[in-house]
Amino acid sequence: MTDCRSKHTTLFAGALIVLLALIQPLLAEEGMWTFNNFPSKTVAEKYGFTPSQAWLDHVRLSSLRIAGGCSASFISPQGLVMTNHHCVVECVEQLSTPQQNFVNEGFSTKAIAEERKCPDFELDQLLEIRDVTNEVQSALAGKTGDEANHALHAMTAALQHSCGTEANIRCDVVSLYHGGLYNLYRYKRYTDVRLVFAPEFSVAQFGGDPDNFNFPRFDFDIGLLRAYEADKPAATPDYLRWSANGSTDGELVFVSGNPGGTSRQLTMAQLAFERDYVFPYVLTNIAELRGQLEQFITRGPEQAREANEELFYRENAFKALSGEQQALLDPQFMAGKQREEQRLRDAVSKDPKLAAYASAWDDIAQIQEVRAQLYVRHMQLSARAFRNGLLGYAVTLVQAAAQRTKPNTERLPEYTDQSLVGVQEDLSAAVPIYNDLEELNLAFTFTIMRRELGADDPFVRKMLGEESPEQLARRLVSGTRLSDPKVREELYNGGQSAIAASNDPMIRFAASISDDLLADRKEYEARVDAPTRTAAEKIAKARFAVYGTTVDPDATFTLRLSYGTVKGFENAEGKFVEPYTNIGGLFQRATGAPPYRLPESWLKAKGSLNLSLPMNLSTTNDVIGGNSGSPLIDRDANVVGLIFDGNIFSLGGDYGYDAAKNRTIAVDSRALLEGLRKVYHLDYVVDEIEAGRR
Amino acid sequence: MTDCRSKHTTLFAGALIVLLALIQPLLAEEGMWTFNNFPSKTVAEKYGFTPSQAWLDHVRLSSLRIAGGCSASFISPQGLVMTNHHCVVECVEQLSTPQQNFVNEGFSTKAIAEERKCPDFELDQLLEIRDVTNEVQSALAGKTGDEANHALHAMTAALQHSCGTEANIRCDVVSLYHGGLYNLYRYKRYTDVRLVFAPEFSVAQFGGDPDNFNFPRFDFDIGLLRAYEADKPAATPDYLRWSANGSTDGELVFVSGNPGGTSRQLTMAQLAFERDYVFPYVLTNIAELRGQLEQFITRGPEQAREANEELFYRENAFKALSGEQQALLDPQFMAGKQREEQRLRDAVSKDPKLAAYASAWDDIAQIQEVRAQLYVRHMQLSARAFRNGLLGYAVTLVQAAAQRTKPNTERLPEYTDQSLVGVQEDLSAAVPIYNDLEELNLAFTFTIMRRELGADDPFVRKMLGEESPEQLARRLVSGTRLSDPKVREELYNGGQSAIAASNDPMIRFAASISDDLLADRKEYEARVDAPTRTAAEKIAKARFAVYGTTVDPDATFTLRLSYGTVKGFENAEGKFVEPYTNIGGLFQRATGAPPYRLPESWLKAKGSLNLSLPMNLSTTNDVIGGNSGSPLIDRDANVVGLIFDGNIFSLGGDYGYDAAKNRTIAVDSRALLEGLRKVYHLDYVVDEIEAGRR
Repeated sequence: MTDCRSKHTTLFAGALIVLLALIQPLLAEEGMWTFNNFPSKTVAEKYGFTPSQAWLDHVRLSSLRIAGGCSASFISPQGLVMTNHHCVVECVEQLSTPQQNFVNEGFSTKAIAEERKCPDFELDQLLEIRDVTNEVQSALAGKTGDEANHALHAMTAALQHSCGTEANIRCDVVSLYHGGLYNLYRYKRYTDVRLVFAPEFSVAQFGGDPDNFNFPRFDFDIGLLRAYEADKPAATPDYLRWSANGSTDGELVFVSGNPGGTSRQLTMAQLAFERDYVFPYVLTNIAELRGQLEQFITRGPEQAREANEELFYRENAFKALSGEQQALLDPQFMAGKQREEQRLRDAVSKDPKLAAYASAWDDIAQIQEVRAQLYVRHMQLSARAFRNGLLGYAVTLVQAAAQRTKPNTERLPEYTDQSLVGVQEDLSAAVPIYNDLEELNLAFTFTIMRRELGADDPFVRKMLGEESPEQLARRLVSGTRLSDPKVREELYNGGQSAIAASNDPMIRFAASISDDLLADRKEYEARVDAPTRTAAEKIAKARFAVYGTTVDPDATFTLRLSYGTVKGFENAEGKFVEPYTNIGGLFQRATGAPPYRLPESWLKAKGSLNLSLPMNLSTTNDVIGGNSGSPLIDRDANVVGLIFDGNIFSLGGDYGYDAAKNRTIAVDSRALLEGLRKVYHLDYVVDEIEAGRR
Repeated sequence: MTDCRSKHTTLFAGALIVLLALIQPLLAEEGMWTFNNFPSKTVAEKYGFTPSQAWLDHVRLSSLRIAGGCSASFISPQGLVMTNHHCVVECVEQLSTPQQNFVNEGFSTKAIAEERKCPDFELDQLLEIRDVTNEVQSALAGKTGDEANHALHAMTAALQHSCGTEANIRCDVVSLYHGGLYNLYRYKRYTDVRLVFAPEFSVAQFGGDPDNFNFPRFDFDIGLLRAYEADKPAATPDYLRWSANGSTDGELVFVSGNPGGTSRQLTMAQLAFERDYVFPYVLTNIAELRGQLEQFITRGPEQAREANEELFYRENAFKALSGEQQALLDPQFMAGKQREEQRLRDAVSKDPKLAAYASAWDDIAQIQEVRAQLYVRHMQLSARAFRNGLLGYAVTLVQAAAQRTKPNTERLPEYTDQSLVGVQEDLSAAVPIYNDLEELNLAFTFTIMRRELGADDPFVRKMLGEESPEQLARRLVSGTRLSDPKVREELYNGGQSAIAASNDPMIRFAASISDDLLADRKEYEARVDAPTRTAAEKIAKARFAVYGTTVDPDATFTLRLSYGTVKGFENAEGKFVEPYTNIGGLFQRATGAPPYRLPESWLKAKGSLNLSLPMNLSTTNDVIGGNSGSPLIDRDANVVGLIFDGNIFSLGGDYGYDAAKNRTIAVDSRALLEGLRKVYHLDYVVDEIEAGRR
């Protein structure tokens, strides 16, 4: 599943990018192109179709980003939104109760009035891209380490502020080419988002973990939402119409979505660091937590309901990251990367005008030595548990209270005035909290912390005192009142004095460690992030100077457009795999045992279905985690599919796109309508989609 | 903990070795020396003490191997055996019941009559080493692939047979230097082994996983057994006497034990294979199973009792293997290995007489490509579950029935007449079986199998049919009667007709897959093991020819002697760590929360203990997993400690010994007696030990 949970999920409101308009396009499918630098000319030369500016604007405004890490699109003028089941499953789980498990049973509606608000969901529509390279680079000029980070934070806050202060506007400073260029992305935020439809987990994720990232495939991985404004369906004049006939083999198709992150422009030293430090740590960590969750869900249906979604994310992340690791362990792949780097370095060393860039690769190699020293500690002190769940609330409340006493431009990016809008929404959201799962996650975090830093580490001693990880987790979770949104709101509104006065154990614990977390972050950002940015900017400039041609920037969980064609591929055994599966294949593959068990709804509807209709398809589009839920559209910008995955060869796509093998996997638009109409009888929605065609 | 559970635990009765008597010793502590090639001269030059042949014979006959993967020694003339708690914990758990948990509470006796038989335990005493290089190499000459394996198996069976057929004699053909030389090791087997004493888990493994492989350390990791013959304590004239005063800093000390396996003589291509294929697979696999066990034991005290020991082994293996992986990910370490290899290759290429050996490194590199193709499947089809637990019984019964119809020399090594003695003992042993844990392990195995081979793999489809891994595991475990030793004995005695007639689901399942397992093994052994043996033999001969000097062979879980000194070391933060901790430190480190919770027995006894006595100590001896339970002895062959671990730097010892940092960790002999006498009041045993001094 190509959602955006990667090994470096440090995405926050102030993530950065940029775009270079003067570089020229290459002739390859590869590319996750920004909307203000799409290679229309290349597409025209290869396919005889030129996406116009109006076409691009229409697609951009019809596309959406789900703040949690997915993509989506408007598919009706009344705010109807299409994305994947696995992108809405968190909401489905939050709306479930011990009495009614919508994850297992599916969620369906008979009319608009039955659509139910997701407790904490945000859709972002990209309104405008503005170049702010000069502003940011001037602010950074001559600064290093902490001073540079400080200047960047201040400029980010100021640029965000320049976008206006409406709660439904969001502006991100985006760094493209690893700090080579900076753009300001302005979004409209939709925060009243309601669940319209979700199929049963068993058909949405048919084949489960064994079939994930494989093809042939037979998933009905769709979730439907609706954007609301002023308690009414939002008017969304820009939306994607449904294709009348779907796609054909070889047809030109586009994917508009938000790839989360790629690492194609990293240096060899950075790749080696990922191979030798990041993957060995991250993969074993995920594997162990996955094992805990696998056992947790066997305790009973309630535990399964609570943890099913989290287990799915761990499984998906494990498989995706293992695939990325394979690329870095492949000597041929690395040799290719090495040649690529050497070619650029040779060109730089031959051109006296580029002399200022020549040291950048060695600079980055040296930074990896510092990074190696800091890495394990930094991974611990920036652990997920400090940003999620009950402890996440506590850390946020403690830090927000302190940060709000400072001027806007002096704050950390996630506590600027603009960011605080989202922070408050998160704190107020009535999402269910499961104490047993919270305990599991906290005990796991504390255990790993002690294991990695050692029992004698001062921070570990401060955290644990005389308690075991399990005892500490239990005391914090059982004693806290932070699962109540009202309590969180009061603490937020009360600011520093409320925090100081609170005797909530989770707040006290967060307050005791918050400075340690911030100090580690500051050191890592000053000694690793800042100098890396300086060196990467040089490499980006060198690359532009030498090749004088357009390359797409590494993905940054911002809107990109990819072109490609419907196409099969040769699998690992050398057998050609056709690009389409059909609905009949779904029934053939079903065994009755999970994850190959079909829900009753499909078994009952089988007789009425056109089994020869395409179910899933494979295309050559270049996508990656974060693209989940992206629409697959034809040259008329009509929906022909819904991206939900890539094939096994797509996993190396983090480091490089292989046109011969890398494939994107989508649910075919024809199977989508067939299922919605005949299996789920979602007539008011299908009518709305079909009416929208006109 | 340095027990012998490594990534390549394919130890079986027919493991192989050899010894070269003519090569000369090097001047370094490094070395796990065989008893027939101990560098006494080097020791004499460095320390002024020459271990005589009588001294060596006495130490050898006092030393023991625990067939499950540990070391031990006789410490009284009445068969009293000292080893680690973590080497007897399996027996302790097997003797426990839901009503009495000896793992938590400890096991103690007041008199010999209370000693209790371990259901399935074997101690091996090394009686004789005989050179059989000519026999084996002649049998192998000119043969390749499956033919070579077949010849080796036949010669192994014949050589074993030449040792005699008594049930208490065991003979192993041991390959030293990866097939360069072959020796026949003849053992006396003790199979009536009784538990005398085991402390509480909490003090034996004080500090648990966080402190494992760390020093300073404070563990009371001792377990006492007794060897019986004819239902009476065995007469064991060769035993180690207890030192009167223990050791001192800098003193010469020896470790006599059974290091399980090292990889110091592998080629760069083999090391790269371990780094890029073995560790990424094995570590994530262990991590996930560990996570499952971590949750399993939280279900209740009974589940904790059942799975505690297995979880400990996974934790220990994970930490040990992670440390080995670190060595291979260290560019400096690998560069050193590369230089070492290049030096030998250069020397070979310069000497026309060695021309026949020159291709060996490239041969091995090419074999790694074959190995890479076969590896994932082979790991699945040789999974632990096929050799352990209920399914392990079933596979053994099915294969033994078929193999017994063949002549002795035509069988697989684990089913020769000699090996069948042990097979029958294992099948008859009344060890408890926990169905829920069996289900967990089988479901995990089947899940990983499907994940790694894919749901469409023919073997996976044959195994699972229409069932999920969990359903299959439950059906097999709930339906089988193999947890009853009588049922297993009947099936064994009934041979092929009993197997064919059985409708036990586990037997039927094992029968349906047995040929697949054997076919995979045959292919892997023919295409990887056999050509690797041929090439490694060349490299071994080249090494002897070029350096003309003694090096110790890689460890093979056979008896070795290592010399060294009591010595501290500089830790990762550059701080010097003294070689001794004391009993007082144990109490200082205790927090009351696991794994730093002391049992009542120690808290109660605190006032009576001499807190300044040494608790644990560090020495420079070269040991590795399998050495757990080895005695640490002085030049008088008196016990000064009990090996139970290494420091964190010892983990890279699989690939190379670093004299500056690598340390072995032992319980000090003084703490052992103090604890046994004053905490546990084990007077009859302490009296026996002290009487033995005379």
